[in-house]
Parts: sequence; structure tokens; C-alpha cells
Amino acid sequence: MKGAVLYGPRDVRFDEVEDPRIVLPTDAIIRMSATCVCGSDLWPYRGIQAISQPTPMGHEYCGIVEEVGSAVQTVRPGQFVIGSFATSDNTCPNCRYGYQSSCVQREFMNRAQAPLLRVPLADGTLVATPELPAADLIPSLLAASDVLGTGWFASDAANVRPGGTVAVVGDGAVGLLGVLSAKQMGAGRIIAMSRHESRKQLACEFGATDIVTERGEEGVARILELTQGIGADSVLECVGTHESMNQAIRSTRRGGSVSYVGVPHGVELDAAELFYTHVHLHGGPAPVRRFLPNLIDLIWNRQIDPGKVFDLKLPLDAVAEGYRAMDERRAIKALLIP
Amino acid sequence: MKGAVLYGPRDVRFDEVEDPRIVLPTDAIIRMSATCVCGSDLWPYRGIQAISQPTPMGHEYCGIVEEVGSAVQTVRPGQFVIGSFATSDNTCPNCRYGYQSSCVQREFMNRAQAPLLRVPLADGTLVATPELPAADLIPSLLAASDVLGTGWFASDAANVRPGGTVAVVGDGAVGLLGVLSAKQMGAGRIIAMSRHESRKQLACEFGATDIVTERGEEGVARILELTQGIGADSVLECVGTHESMNQAIRSTRRGGSVSYVGVPHGVELDAAELFYTHVHLHGGPAPVRRFLPNLIDLIWNRQIDPGKVFDLKLPLDAVAEGYRAMDERRAIKALLIP
Repeated sequence: MKGAVLYGPRDVRFDEVEDPRIVLPTDAIIRMSATCVCGSDLWPYRGIQAISQPTPMGHEYCGIVEEVGSAVQTVRPGQFVIGSFATSDNTCPNCRYGYQSSCVQREFMNRAQAPLLRVPLADGTLVATPELPAADLIPSLLAASDVLGTGWFASDAANVRPGGTVAVVGDGAVGLLGVLSAKQMGAGRIIAMSRHESRKQLACEFGATDIVTERGEEGVARILELTQGIGADSVLECVGTHESMNQAIRSTRRGGSVSYVGVPHGVELDAAELFYTHVHLHGGPAPVRRFLPNLIDLIWNRQIDPGKVFDLKLPLDAVAEGYRAMDERRAIKALLIP
Repeated sequence: MKGAVLYGPRDVRFDEVEDPRIVLPTDAIIRMSATCVCGSDLWPYRGIQAISQPTPMGHEYCGIVEEVGSAVQTVRPGQFVIGSFATSDNTCPNCRYGYQSSCVQREFMNRAQAPLLRVPLADGTLVATPELPAADLIPSLLAASDVLGTGWFASDAANVRPGGTVAVVGDGAVGLLGVLSAKQMGAGRIIAMSRHESRKQLACEFGATDIVTERGEEGVARILELTQGIGADSVLECVGTHESMNQAIRSTRRGGSVSYVGVPHGVELDAAELFYTHVHLHGGPAPVRRFLPNLIDLIWNRQIDPGKVFDLKLPLDAVAEGYRAMDERRAIKALLIP
């Protein structure tokens, strides 16, 4: 079969890759209904994160189970399933504490930008929908695999509370779905930081009450201005750079919470500085599996429509254009249909 | 009057200082019943934290109110009071959220190693005891001013829960009172890290169930061994060095909590590394004022005896020996009686 392979900076090709097969009895093979390009795929695409060899790409997926290993018990061929970008057995201590993305058996998924995918630890990783979904639900169900689950975790990890004031740093798909998640969790005020027209608009559709276009120290000053000088209760850092992390920390009130959900790139925190800010800091790879059943319910019952972040739809073989459009910020997120 | 003044590395003298007086109508003057030397006083004493001029020392205090400014309403001359090392108005937004040590009017106290002390923002900073305390309660009440309040915050900030597993990095007075606090909060297992005989013994008296003598990576390995390989739910970092902070983070289970309550000295955190540990991180100067009423109650009713950390009692004029004894780890904490 053919799938997306990264050969070097800005060189993604739809190229011949090995067909997946059941390797372990706990595996499943799924036939992709839709996949997509992640903001985190852009780090290696841009050459900021080096690769040592041609690398099959993609870690967001949903589709129909094609085959399962002999030990798989909870999903069966023909079901529509969504899984996390991180596999989990969902039984180890870390999983039981709700940190399935730190499962002792965790593997980070790849090779999902392809028509077929092997998913290890199928029982602990995949969640089936009640029945086969309507076609228009598929983008939203796909979003639950990572970008929605990550935005949701950002909100959860920043302790968003009913009536609280939330600021979101980053207007990528994760940031936008952080806005949606904060809204679902009852935030009273949601300040989205964006200077990009279509993203600002989507942030408002998802529940943002204020837009701040300033960045860095000016952005911090604006947030303080909007919060009587004390800062937001919860700040979601959805970028992963030194500047965005510091912006998030400085926009938070004393005793408030900062979450960070994108792999930080070159971010060093001065602990003495952090000490005097009195913030709670929590983040990491989102334990999407913890949230999947609830997120699938919300989508299934059409209470949320996270699929709106896909503003570019391409056939899978045009995956390279998906990367280009996201790299150039022409698209928020590219949906790929095999 | 005379009080402790630091002139340079390891040069503390009991020397002439200005008598305090009411400067603002919100001030109080208290006559010290007892004061003490703090672990944090050792940073400038050892020259690790530079001073630019002779510096009056001390920020832990309790005693009898001598005089109050015209605006003071909640304390009156003759009352026995305890205050935090950080002043607070106890009315600003940060105070109302329980972060009085980030009060918008905060001042860090000094000049407390002296017979008389000016306390700004007396109404928001000081808490009076029900009546004059018995003499044997005074060391414990003094401890509430900082070292107990800080140990208590360490436990609170590390989300210590009934039945939870707690590890404490640091066997200074704060670490030991972190053990006491975790015990009060119902921790099921409390692992104290110490290789010092009298401190180990006091940790056990305060509620430690396990002692780990190894440090650094070996200490981490030992904690993992004691927790089925997953780490402690809550880890209290009570030292403030790069090594202790990393030891604390690596001893914590995924999704667990690390608190840090001593000013970090030269600690840089790699955010990417922190990201994959999945820990909650929270700390800062302890908001002692939040906890004072409860801590005073516990002491008053003799439910806790934090004054045990004072294993050296000196007249105030022997303050230099108090510093020396703590610097050389001959004493856990030196009590000074004017």
C-alpha cells in the first residue's frame, strides 16, 4: 500500500510502505475512514526535530476494524473505532490513575497517514462507537483521537472551573479545541490569543468571549488588563515554545493553573522565577484514552462539533499539500481521506 | 536595641540596630517571645546569595503586641500573636484565593532576630492566640510562623490525600514538618529521605513510615522500589537545589504531584523532560497566613508538637552560634530567646 513518508525537511511523499499485519495477539488492524496532519507533525517536517531515516507519518486515526489478534476481546471486525495517538493497556497503575499516555506499555503511534493501520494493545487503546457513524460525524470522531483529546486535557490540566477565567495561548487546532473544551467545562470567560481572521472566528464559534491579538509581553499586559491586574485562573499553553510558555505563566493569577500539552521545544524554566509566580503547572502527552468515551458521547449526541477545525479536505494521496498548507498557515488542519 | 546583622559570609553579629516604630497606621510593634534561624537564612550566611550591605536578619516571630497603629482593628496590645514571614492585607484577590504570600501589598519580613519587631499590615498578617500561651507552647507557635506553615504548604501543594504515598526530599526542619503535615492530612505511607540519625528519629516521631538513606539516582531507584516501580503520589521537595528537584520529580508517579517550597537556587527545568513525567508541579513562598488559624488550633489543643524541630535553644545574643550550629548541621533549628 501507499502512505505518507517524511524523507527530510519539507519532503513528505505518498510512497510505498509495508502493509500492516497482526504481530501480537493484542493487535488490531483498522481500515482508515479518515486521518489527518497534526501540528506536531510540523516539527520534523520543518526540520526542527531531526529524523534519521525515512519516517512513515501520522498518529490520528479512526476507521473500521478489519482484523483482530487472538487475545483481543473488546473490539471486533466491522466496528468503527477511535484510538489515542498513544497506545495503552488501560490496566497498569498509570492507566488506572488516568494517565494512559504514560502506560507502562505505551507506544506512540505512527504510520496512520495510510489506508490501513496496525494498532497495538487494541483492547486498551480503541473505543468503538455505538454503531457505524453518519459520514458527517467522522471528522469530529477523528478529532477525538488527538487534537480534541489534547485540547480537552489542556482544559482539564489547567483546572478550568465553572465561571472561571481562561486564557488560551495558541490558535492552532489544539488551542481552538482548548477553547471548545473550556466552554464545555463551564468557563465564564475565555480569552483566545489570535491575530488570524478565520481562527479568531472559529475560536468565537467554539466559545471564546474575548480575543487578544497582542503577543509576548504585550499579550501578557492585555490579559492582565482584562482580569483586573491579577491574571487568568487557567491558562492553556498550546504552542510549545519558550515564548508561549512564558507568556502563559505570566498571564496566570497567583495560585492559578497553567497547562502545556505540546512537546516543548527548547523550553527551559527558571525554577526560582516559577516559584514566585505561584502557578500550578501540569501537562504532558494528553491521556486521550481517559476522555475518549465522554468525547465520543458528546460528538455522537451532536453536542460538540470539533470537526470544524478541518478547514482543508484532501484525498490521502495529496498528503504533501496538507503539510504545505498547514506549514504556511493556509489551513488550520488538513483532513485526509483514503 | 541589639539584633542579628549579617555582615558577610559566615559573619553574623548581635549588633546595634534601630528600634522599630509605627511607620504606617496599619503597623504593629511586637515584643518577641521567641525567634529563630531559618534554613533560608543559610543561603546568604554561606555567601551563596550575595548581600550588598549589612543586613538585619530574621523573619520568624511570635510575641506580645506592644503597640498598634491607628488603623489596626483585629489585634491589640497585650495579645500574643503569630504572623507569617510574608505580610498580607488578606483582602486583595491573591489573598482571597489563599495566596497571601503573593498579596499585592506583600513585604517579606526581616529584622525578626531582635527583641522588638515592626509588622506591617498587622490586621492581615497577624493571628492572635485565644489567650496568653503556656511557655511550653511557644516554640510550636513560633514554628507556625514559617517552618511549619511551609511544611504544611508543601504537603497541601503536593496534594497529599488520605491513604496516599508521600516522599519527602530534605531532612531540614521544613522537610521534617512536611512529614508531620502529611501525617495530619492522612497519608498512608510517608517516606523520609535522610541519612542523619537524629533527623531520621524525629521524622519517625512525626509519622514517617520508611526512611531512605540513598540520594540522587539511587534515592530515586529506592523510592521506585518501595512503590512497585511507579513512584510516590506526592513528593515534597524541601531543599531547593537542582539535584533535589530532579530527585523529587523522578520519584513521583505519572500524574502525581511535586511541591517545592524553598527558593530554588540555580535550578533550571527542561520543560520537555518535565512534559513526559506527567507530574503536577506547584510551589512558591508558602501562604502561611492561609493555614495559621488551623495550625494555631492544632498546637493550642496539643494535637501536634512542631516545636520539636528546635533542638538547640540559645539566648538571642548567642545568635551567631545558632547560625554556626545549623550551618554545620549540628542543629536542625536554633530557637532564640530574647
